[in-house]
Amino acid sequence: MAGSTFGNIFKIMTWGESHGKGVGVVIDGCPAGLPLSETDIQQYLNRRKPGQSKFATPRKEDDAVEILSGVFEGKTTGTPISLIVFNKNQQSKDYSEIASYYRPGHADYTFDAKYGFRDYRGGGRSSGRETIGRVAAGAVAAKILKTLGISILTYTRSIGPVSIDMEHFCADEILNNALFMPDKKAAQEASAYLEACMKEQNSSGGTIECVITGMPAGIGDTVFDKLDANLAKAILSIGAVKGFEIGDGFAVAAATGLTNNDAFCLDESGKIAKKTNHAGGILGGMSDGSPIVFRAAIKPTPSIASTQQTVNKSGEEIAINIKGRHDPIIVPRAVVVVEAMTALVITDLLLSNMGARMDYLEKIYKK
Amino acid sequence: MAGSTFGNIFKIMTWGESHGKGVGVVIDGCPAGLPLSETDIQQYLNRRKPGQSKFATPRKEDDAVEILSGVFEGKTTGTPISLIVFNKNQQSKDYSEIASYYRPGHADYTFDAKYGFRDYRGGGRSSGRETIGRVAAGAVAAKILKTLGISILTYTRSIGPVSIDMEHFCADEILNNALFMPDKKAAQEASAYLEACMKEQNSSGGTIECVITGMPAGIGDTVFDKLDANLAKAILSIGAVKGFEIGDGFAVAAATGLTNNDAFCLDESGKIAKKTNHAGGILGGMSDGSPIVFRAAIKPTPSIASTQQTVNKSGEEIAINIKGRHDPIIVPRAVVVVEAMTALVITDLLLSNMGARMDYLEKIYKK
Amino acid sequence: MAGSTFGNIFKIMTWGESHGKGVGVVIDGCPAGLPLSETDIQQYLNRRKPGQSKFATPRKEDDAVEILSGVFEGKTTGTPISLIVFNKNQQSKDYSEIASYYRPGHADYTFDAKYGFRDYRGGGRSSGRETIGRVAAGAVAAKILKTLGISILTYTRSIGPVSIDMEHFCADEILNNALFMPDKKAAQEASAYLEACMKEQNSSGGTIECVITGMPAGIGDTVFDKLDANLAKAILSIGAVKGFEIGDGFAVAAATGLTNNDAFCLDESGKIAKKTNHAGGILGGMSDGSPIVFRAAIKPTPSIASTQQTVNKSGEEIAINIKGRHDPIIVPRAVVVVEAMTALVITDLLLSNMGARMDYLEKIYKK
Amino acid sequence: MAGSTFGNIFKIMTWGESHGKGVGVVIDGCPAGLPLSETDIQQYLNRRKPGQSKFATPRKEDDAVEILSGVFEGKTTGTPISLIVFNKNQQSKDYSEIASYYRPGHADYTFDAKYGFRDYRGGGRSSGRETIGRVAAGAVAAKILKTLGISILTYTRSIGPVSIDMEHFCADEILNNALFMPDKKAAQEASAYLEACMKEQNSSGGTIECVITGMPAGIGDTVFDKLDANLAKAILSIGAVKGFEIGDGFAVAAATGLTNNDAFCLDESGKIAKKTNHAGGILGGMSDGSPIVFRAAIKPTPSIASTQQTVNKSGEEIAINIKGRHDPIIVPRAVVVVEAMTALVITDLLLSNMGARMDYLEKIYKK
Repeated sequence: MAGSTFGNIFKIMTWGESHGKGVGVVIDGCPAGLPLSETDIQQYLNRRKPGQSKFATPRKEDDAVEILSGVFEGKTTGTPISLIVFNKNQQSKDYSEIASYYRPGHADYTFDAKYGFRDYRGGGRSSGRETIGRVAAGAVAAKILKTLGISILTYTRSIGPVSIDMEHFCADEILNNALFMPDKKAAQEASAYLEACMKEQNSSGGTIECVITGMPAGIGDTVFDKLDANLAKAILSIGAVKGFEIGDGFAVAAATGLTNNDAFCLDESGKIAKKTNHAGGILGGMSDGSPIVFRAAIKPTPSIASTQQTVNKSGEEIAINIKGRHDPIIVPRAVVVVEAMTALVITDLLLSNMGARMDYLEKIYKK
Repeated sequence: MAGSTFGNIFKIMTWGESHGKGVGVVIDGCPAGLPLSETDIQQYLNRRKPGQSKFATPRKEDDAVEILSGVFEGKTTGTPISLIVFNKNQQSKDYSEIASYYRPGHADYTFDAKYGFRDYRGGGRSSGRETIGRVAAGAVAAKILKTLGISILTYTRSIGPVSIDMEHFCADEILNNALFMPDKKAAQEASAYLEACMKEQNSSGGTIECVITGMPAGIGDTVFDKLDANLAKAILSIGAVKGFEIGDGFAVAAATGLTNNDAFCLDESGKIAKKTNHAGGILGGMSDGSPIVFRAAIKPTPSIASTQQTVNKSGEEIAINIKGRHDPIIVPRAVVVVEAMTALVITDLLLSNMGARMDYLEKIYKK
Repeated sequence: MAGSTFGNIFKIMTWGESHGKGVGVVIDGCPAGLPLSETDIQQYLNRRKPGQSKFATPRKEDDAVEILSGVFEGKTTGTPISLIVFNKNQQSKDYSEIASYYRPGHADYTFDAKYGFRDYRGGGRSSGRETIGRVAAGAVAAKILKTLGISILTYTRSIGPVSIDMEHFCADEILNNALFMPDKKAAQEASAYLEACMKEQNSSGGTIECVITGMPAGIGDTVFDKLDANLAKAILSIGAVKGFEIGDGFAVAAATGLTNNDAFCLDESGKIAKKTNHAGGILGGMSDGSPIVFRAAIKPTPSIASTQQTVNKSGEEIAINIKGRHDPIIVPRAVVVVEAMTALVITDLLLSNMGARMDYLEKIYKK
Repeated sequence: MAGSTFGNIFKIMTWGESHGKGVGVVIDGCPAGLPLSETDIQQYLNRRKPGQSKFATPRKEDDAVEILSGVFEGKTTGTPISLIVFNKNQQSKDYSEIASYYRPGHADYTFDAKYGFRDYRGGGRSSGRETIGRVAAGAVAAKILKTLGISILTYTRSIGPVSIDMEHFCADEILNNALFMPDKKAAQEASAYLEACMKEQNSSGGTIECVITGMPAGIGDTVFDKLDANLAKAILSIGAVKGFEIGDGFAVAAATGLTNNDAFCLDESGKIAKKTNHAGGILGGMSDGSPIVFRAAIKPTPSIASTQQTVNKSGEEIAINIKGRHDPIIVPRAVVVVEAMTALVITDLLLSNMGARMDYLEKIYKK
C-alpha cells in the first residue's frame, strides 16, 4: 500500500525526511475557486514550529511554505496544489552512533524489519517533520470548511496528571500559553510538572481534545466509512497517539442505556437537537448536528536523556544515552496536527457526501 | 464514497438490510489456493448468532452461509468470493410507529438527514445483521492468517463495572460462557449485573480486548496507513464502538518516557524482543514482533424498554417505549466482529507489504 | 489488485462463474432516491440474453435478476444494491477434456499461469456470463443518467467486411434486427456473411459504435482520469475487445491540424458549440458538450469447430476440435455490455465532478 | 476524483503548470532497495526535451530533475520519492489575447466549463510540460522492470502517410533520428512530409508502437483490471491520443476465428508458446508470455499558425492566428511518454499480482 496517501476525493500525498532536502505535500482534488495564499497555510505551520517555548526544541527552523502549483490569481484552480518546505537546518553531523542501535519507543527497529535498512538521520520519515505535509494540507481543508461555516477547536486537555478544569475553560487562552491549554491555571501547573520531568531527564504524555462545530447532520457513511472511524484512523496515524475516543468514549463501558442515550428534543428554532451529547455528535457513523467531540492519548516523548537498555545492529544488548535536546512533551506541537487531520477527514467526507442523493445531482446538473 | 467497501487488496463489499431478502459480502482479491469450505465461515457466524443465551435476543435465525462463487474443488480460485446469508425470520409486522419517530442512540435521525428517508424496518442497514458480511469475510481472512502462523484471540474484558482479573485469565474459558469472558468468576459477576440491568429495563456497556500473536515484524506503513491507524478505523467502524486504544492506550497520558518506553533485548533464541510491551506490539505504525494488544469501548444497547424522550417526524416532542425484546448488552456478540475486522486489516496489510522490498519482487519474479 | 471492482464513487463489485451457483454484482455508492425496479434492470439483461437468434447460442437461460438489497418502497436508499442472477442451465457434463488442454484465443493458459489452476467449467470467470453483473449495474447507472437528460445509443457498426452506411442510419432499426445494426440492408448482408462463416466452422469479428448525447461540458479530469481514458479502460475490460478509438480515432494519424481541428462557433441559441466533431466530444479529457462518439473492435469468437493446434497440460502438442455450439460472432451480444460500461463511467465521473468547484459545495451545504 | 493520481500500489501524483514554479511528481509505494540516481531519471526526461530538432520547439528548457526525498545512500528507502523540475524559461509575456478566446483542439473551453476559469498561461495544467511528472516516475518504474528482466521498446510507427517498413525495422535507429523511427528511410520521408506541413502552417498526426518483452505469463486481472484495459487508460490519458489497439487491434474486426486465433505450441526449450501473436501478448486480460504489442494514434498539433475560426469569452465568433512557434508534430516527443506510462502500468500490476497466490504469501512470510 502507498502509505503516504490520504483521502478519497480531497486526496493528499506527503513526502520528505527530517534531514533530506525538504518536506511537502501534493493535494489532488481541491475544489476550484477557493481563495488561497501562503499566509493561510503558514499560520497553521507556525503553530507546530519548534523553538517557541522552553518545552520545545530550540532548533530554529523557518518552515516557510511555498505554493508551487494549483493556485492562479489567488484562487485554487482545481489542479494539484504542491506545497513545499525546504529543510534549512541540517548540519552534517555524525549519525554513526544512532545508526548502530535501536532507540526504545522509536521506529528504528520496525523500519529495518520492513525495508531492510533505513534513513537513520534524525528519524528519517518517522520524524516529527513528517507532519508538516499534513498541517499544510489541513490548512487548505480548514479554509474550505470555514467557507461552509464549520470550525474546529483543538487544545491540550491534559499533561501528565494535570487536566484542564472544564469550569474554567477559556478558548481565548489556548494560543496564550505555550502548552495550548484553554485553562490558565492548568497550564501553569502543567508547566511546573514538565520542568520537573526535564530535571529528571524524563518526559510526559497527555491528551488532546477536539471540537467540531457547524457540521450539517448526515455526514459520514453508515458502515465502514463512519465519520468516527475515519477520524480514528486519521488521529491514530499521527505518531505517538495510542488511543482515540469519541463523546463519552471509554466511559461508556461502565454506563447504562438510560444514562448514555441522548434524548432528542427541539431547539428554540424548532430544529431537531439532543438534550445531551454523550454520543459526541455522531450516531450510526453520521454527524447528528451536535458538536463532534473526541480525544486522543499521546505517549511521552520516547527520546529521553536517561540511560536506557537496548540492542545494537550487531545483536548485542547495550546501554545508551540519547544525545541532543528533545522536547519533554509531544502534546503541544501535536495539537495543530490533530486539527489538520480532522479538517482533512471532514472535507473529504463532505465532498463524498455530495453524491449521496439524487436531488443533489439534480441541483448541480439538471438543466 | 462507497461506504460499504473495505480493504485495498483484500477488498470486501458488504450489503443487506435487517429485513430485506438477505445479507452478504463479496471478497475481491483473495489469493488463490486457500482451502475453504462453508464450515470455515459458519463457525465464525455461529459466534455472533442470536438466541444463544439469556442476554441475547431469542429470535431464532439460522444464519447459514452459502458460498456462491470463487471456490472450486475446495480451494479459492483467486476470483471474487460471494457469500450470502438469507434472512429467514422477517415476519411482516407493523413498522408504522418506529417509522414515525427517532429512537435515541440510533441512526434513525442521521439516516433521514443524509438520504432524505430510510428503510426503517428493524434498523435497515444499521442493524446488527449488517455485521454478518464482516464476520463471513473475516473468517476467510482468518484462515489465511492461520496458514501463516498468525492467531487472533478476542474476548470480553469488562461489562459495566465488572472487569476480568488478568491473574485468572484463561483462554479456554472464553467459549465456555455466554459472555465470552476469559475469567469464570468475572463472567458470573457480569451475569448477575446484567440480570439487574434487565430488571430495570436498562442495558450495559463494556470493553473488548484483542491479542494478535505470530505477527512478523515490519507490517504496516509509516505514515497514514499505520497498522494501529487501520485497526482503529476497522474497530470504530463497528456500530456502538466509542473508543479504541492500543497497548497502554489512554494510560500513556499520565505515564513518563521512563515508564512507557519498552527496552529492546534479545530473547533466548537471540532474536530481538522487548522487555515490556507498553507499545502494544506496534512502533511507528509497524508491528514490532511482540503481541499486538488493543481494546475497544462498546456503548450500552440503545434500545431499552424504559420510557424515553424523543421527537417524531411531525416535529413534536414525544415520550416513547421501544417494544420488543432487546439484548441488554452488545459486547458478547461484538467479540467475533472485532476479531473479524482485525483479521481483515492484518490480511490486507500483509498483502500490501509484499511490494515493500525489491528482494521480495525478485523472490517471486526473477528467473 | 481486486480485479472485479470498478468505479470510484459509483463503485461496483461483480462476481460469479459460468457454472457456479449464479452471477451478480453489488453497487456501493448509488445515490438515494432513484426509482428502481427489477424491470429497469431486466430490460438491459434481455438485450444480452442468448438464444434470441440463429447467431446466438440456443441455450435457454432465464437470466432473471433479483434485487436483494438497497431498494425500499421502490427507491434506492443509498445503501449497497445487491443484484443476483442464479445460474439455471448447468447440467453436470464431462469437462475432463476441456480441463486437459489450452484453447487458442481463450484465457485457459493465462489463468493457470496466474493462479496455478482454474475453474475450467464453461470458461469459469472468463465466460461471457461474467458480463451479467456489468449489464445489471450499468442499467442502474443508465437510469441515473436518464434522470439527468443523458442518453447512450450503442449499435453494431460492422461485421466482418460489412459496415453500416451512415447515409442509411436509422436508430429505430437497432432493436429490429438480431445483429443490432442501425441499417436494415447492412444487417441483411452481415447476416448472409455470418451464415457463410458458420458453414465453414468459422467466426467473425466486428465493431461497435457508441454515442452519448446530453452531456454537460466539463465532465472528466485533465490528467490521468480523462473521460476518454476511463472509457478506454472500461471498454477494453470487456473480453474480446482489441481496440478503442474516440472521434476520428486512428484516422487522426493521417490527418493534419487544419482538417482535424474543430472550429468553435455559436449555435442558434447562442451557446458555444463546434462546427465539426473530429474530437468525438472530448477536449483535454473533458466533455465539450458535443456528442461523445467512440468505437470498439471486437475479435472473432475464438471457439470454433474447425480443427486447431494447441498444447495440453502434459506438455504435448495436440490437435483439438472444440465441441458444442458457439456463437459465430460476439459483437451483437456485446453491444449492451459496451452501453453498460459507458453508463458506469459517465455516472462515476458526474459524481466525482460534483466536488470540482467551491460554488457546487456552497450550493449543497451553505446555509 | 483526484485526477492527477495514478496507480494502486506504485502510486503517483503529478503536479504543475506550464508557467508556474515547476512541475513534479511524488511516487508513493516504490519498493525499498532499488538503486536510483538522478541520472536514471534524467536520461528519460532528455528524450522528451524540446529544442532537439527542427520539428520541436526551440525553447531551451533544462528540465533538470532533482530527487527531494525517498532515496538514501543511492537506494530507494520505501518512502515517497519526490521529484521536481523547476520551470526556468517563463518570461512574463502578455497572455491577455490567449485568455480571451478558446483555441480549437485545446482544453481552454472545457477547462472553463469544468472549473469556471483557468490558468491560461501556456496551457496551464494541459500543457505538454504536464508529462514531465509522468516520464520521471516512469523512469523509476522502468528501472524496477529492468531489474526483473522486462524491457519496453517504443518508437514512432507512422507520421502522416509515412509508415515504417517492418522489413527494415532497426531498433538501433530509433535514437538516431529526431523522429524516433526505427527505419532510416521512413524517417527521411517523414521528415520531408513534415517540412511541407510547416510550410503550409499546418501540422501532422501519427502513430506510436510499443513492445514489451520479458513479461512473465499471468500478469493482469481477469475482469475490470485487464492488463490491456489498464494500458488503454494509461495511453489514452496522454493528451492528443485518440486511439489504442493491442495486437491486431482494429484489424480483428474483419478477421475470422481461423485467422485470428494463435495456436499454442512448445518452443525449443519445451515451454508453452504461441505460433503467432495476433493477440498482442494478452489473453483474457493477462499476459501470455509473448511480447505485448500495442499502438496509439496521436492527433496533429492543434496549435497551427493558419487562420482559424473560434469564439471568444464575450460570446463572439472571431478569426484567430495563434502566435509563437509550435511543433508541427506531437508524436516524437510523446514516444517516451508512452513508454513511461507503460512502465507505470506494468510495475503496478506486477506488484498487485504478488498477492494472487497463497504460495507467494508463504514464500515471503512462512517461517
